[in-house]
Amino acid sequence: MPEQTVYKPGLDGVVAAVTKLSYLDVDAEEIVIRGYELIELAEKTQYLDLVQLLLRGELPSNSERSSLEMALRTEYDLPDGFFQLFKQLPKETHPMDALRTGISALAGYDKQLEARKEEEISQTAVRLLAKIPNVVANSYHILHDEPAVDPKQELPFSTNFLYMITGQMPTPTDADFFDQSLMMYSEHEMPNSTFTARVIASTNSDLYGALTGAAASLKGNLHGGANEAVMHMLLEAKTTDGFRHLLHQKLKNKEKIMGFGHRVYMKKMDPRATLMKKALKCLSDDKQRGDLYEMCEAGEQLMKEEKGLYPNLDYYAAPVYYLLGIPIDLYTPVFFAARTIGLCAHVAEQYGNNKLFRPRVLYNGPRGLHP
Amino acid sequence: MPEQTVYKPGLDGVVAAVTKLSYLDVDAEEIVIRGYELIELAEKTQYLDLVQLLLRGELPSNSERSSLEMALRTEYDLPDGFFQLFKQLPKETHPMDALRTGISALAGYDKQLEARKEEEISQTAVRLLAKIPNVVANSYHILHDEPAVDPKQELPFSTNFLYMITGQMPTPTDADFFDQSLMMYSEHEMPNSTFTARVIASTNSDLYGALTGAAASLKGNLHGGANEAVMHMLLEAKTTDGFRHLLHQKLKNKEKIMGFGHRVYMKKMDPRATLMKKALKCLSDDKQRGDLYEMCEAGEQLMKEEKGLYPNLDYYAAPVYYLLGIPIDLYTPVFFAARTIGLCAHVAEQYGNNKLFRPRVLYNGPRGLHP
Ligand SMILES: CC(C)(COP(=O)(O)OP(=O)(O)OC[C@H]1O[C@@H](n2cnc3c(N)ncnc32)[C@H](O)[C@@H]1OP(=O)(O)O)[C@@H](O)C(=O)NCCC(=O)NCCS
Ligand SMILES: CC(C)(COP(=O)(O)OP(=O)(O)OC[C@H]1O[C@@H](n2cnc3c(N)ncnc32)[C@H](O)[C@@H]1OP(=O)(O)O)[C@@H](O)C(=O)NCCC(=O)NCCS
Repeated sequence: MPEQTVYKPGLDGVVAAVTKLSYLDVDAEEIVIRGYELIELAEKTQYLDLVQLLLRGELPSNSERSSLEMALRTEYDLPDGFFQLFKQLPKETHPMDALRTGISALAGYDKQLEARKEEEISQTAVRLLAKIPNVVANSYHILHDEPAVDPKQELPFSTNFLYMITGQMPTPTDADFFDQSLMMYSEHEMPNSTFTARVIASTNSDLYGALTGAAASLKGNLHGGANEAVMHMLLEAKTTDGFRHLLHQKLKNKEKIMGFGHRVYMKKMDPRATLMKKALKCLSDDKQRGDLYEMCEAGEQLMKEEKGLYPNLDYYAAPVYYLLGIPIDLYTPVFFAARTIGLCAHVAEQYGNNKLFRPRVLYNGPRGLHP
Repeated sequence: MPEQTVYKPGLDGVVAAVTKLSYLDVDAEEIVIRGYELIELAEKTQYLDLVQLLLRGELPSNSERSSLEMALRTEYDLPDGFFQLFKQLPKETHPMDALRTGISALAGYDKQLEARKEEEISQTAVRLLAKIPNVVANSYHILHDEPAVDPKQELPFSTNFLYMITGQMPTPTDADFFDQSLMMYSEHEMPNSTFTARVIASTNSDLYGALTGAAASLKGNLHGGANEAVMHMLLEAKTTDGFRHLLHQKLKNKEKIMGFGHRVYMKKMDPRATLMKKALKCLSDDKQRGDLYEMCEAGEQLMKEEKGLYPNLDYYAAPVYYLLGIPIDLYTPVFFAARTIGLCAHVAEQYGNNKLFRPRVLYNGPRGLHP
């Protein structure tokens, strides 16, 4: 038997890594990102500032921000002929699977694939960060027999991303809320997908592999897949009364309600959900969809009363993405694109001070059998 | 801070799961697979028996073995046009990356992708087990501008696999040693790739995603990638003296020697390595390559004396695969194909009693900064 036989299912409360990147301080109700508080960052800075902070350890000066912006813009395009890959895939392919396949295939084009030093990983991260929105948007278009939407180099990162998804130039307000949602999704300590990426990287495997695994993880509906499930519920319910009825029914059937609960925030509302709720308020006013906001609030209230459970980020991000015109199937891929930076930073940190992840088990099967 | 702040880098000695599948009993020097001892199984049964044992919990009767064999044979083929995917990939693509991309892309063809019940997962596992050797062999051929080698339905599983790799009908002896090597690689408790697969599956993500992540993990040279690294070392060294010299040099440079050491067997020789060493003896006699056997033994001796380190499976599997005519770049993909069954069994077990993997961190970055 392994020396330490205390078994915590799901590694609940177990420390798996030392990190300088982020920390959920539940008591202080703070999501700490390299010393800053995520919600304050979202109110005062933009997604690319956060990218620079995660990648380089400090918020950028104006000129650093411009350099990053330029570096990204020159990398928006995918390799020649890359879209053929998506034409190859069966039409039934789930967008998260198309994304996973796309990231995996991109590995073969990267001349720095075998690089493991921090500076080199940062360069690869910038390439991935620039290209993944293109993979997300255009794998979707191609699988739906729609024409690809080429990136526009003159557009800022988030604007270009939303433009590639919808094929329409977003209003500045929409682009801003989208940017804010990317900040919310950028980095969040050690969720399953980040853990997956670090576990893979610990074999000295490459960054593309770590991200491919993270995409596989994020797809699950106990993780990133929850945002899509939330929107399907809202659409199925149609009205506030319908939503209350649906939730009651699901609770009666002992189903888990997507968009509620969190390993770390079990007893409080996720601060990111609070921020996205504000975004939803503005957007629903703007787009005369107060009904949607009202439904979500009613669901929040009901779940608090009935189960003492609070919304997580996915609960409020889902209707925000709906009002931004993002196809439901792309909510999780967009989450992944936003999280790319956090994943890359964690992989770089893992390489910097590596120890192979290799836990043990408690065996509860038979012994002493012979063929 | 999380309640349990004992931090074990790499989760060394930490129990991550309860399993009926396998257990490394280091004191008894046994690799337990559902109650049987792996080495005894390898001496008395064949790979498909082990497959049935892992998948169904019991060794098969003769008729069960035939059914499994038939089920696999009818699934050897890949979907129409699937090879196009590999034609698409840049020629520089690493075979493990081609395999990873191939498994990820196969997801879109599987009608049972959203199934999570044990019986359904077993059916999907059989399809994957049958198809992955085809992906391994033919992604390699296509990336090397060689003609694809179609599977032969009339051949048993391991014979067909080796045939697709080399394009030549293997001798019965070669097929037998190859089969034995697949048994050695089939299942091994909670190595990094198996852990990766379970972590991914715990989000309720699908089997293809779990395997894609596991392929990413296995590629790393601290894990499956070690077998290729061993062979490159042996070829570089050319002779026994050359090998001794190379090892001394690497030790002097404080390099890690691939093929030595193991988290769990640190103080003993991996029993699988002992069995593969015997296989190498037979094969090297058979093929008049006693020099290769001698080199490996000399390396084993040197490492024991100098560092107290013992060979792991990869150390002796590498020269065995070399003598079987397998291209070096395919050693890790072959390892993956053999491990597919263990991975599928772990994923099924994870779904059966799931708890999301979501550990915590120790944060050692700054606090209280403001933008
Ligand atoms: C996120 C999540 C997996 C974290 O859960 P966890 O730490 O593993 O805890 P558990 O799933 O074991 O939940 C603990 C208890 O709360 C209940 N619970 C947790 N989330 C729930 C939900 N969304 N709906 C109903 N009950 C829930 C569980 O049923 C369990 O009750 P029990 O002890 O009576 O069985 C879980 O809250 C969940 O499944 N949420 C829905 C999916 C989701 O929104 N995911 C996105 C997360 S950002
Ligand atoms: C498999 C492996 C990663 C397990 O290692 P681990 O449990 O994480 O332990 P560590 O890598 O921290 O090794 C512990 C000590 O043994 C030494 N060591 C372990 N394997 C070594 C090797 N192959 N060559 C030289 N030194 C080795 C380490 O340098 C370390 O020494 P230190 O304490 O002085 O720094 C490690 O043995 C290794 O890297 N082996 C080579 C790769 C390989 O063959 N992998 C296939 C495994 S099946």
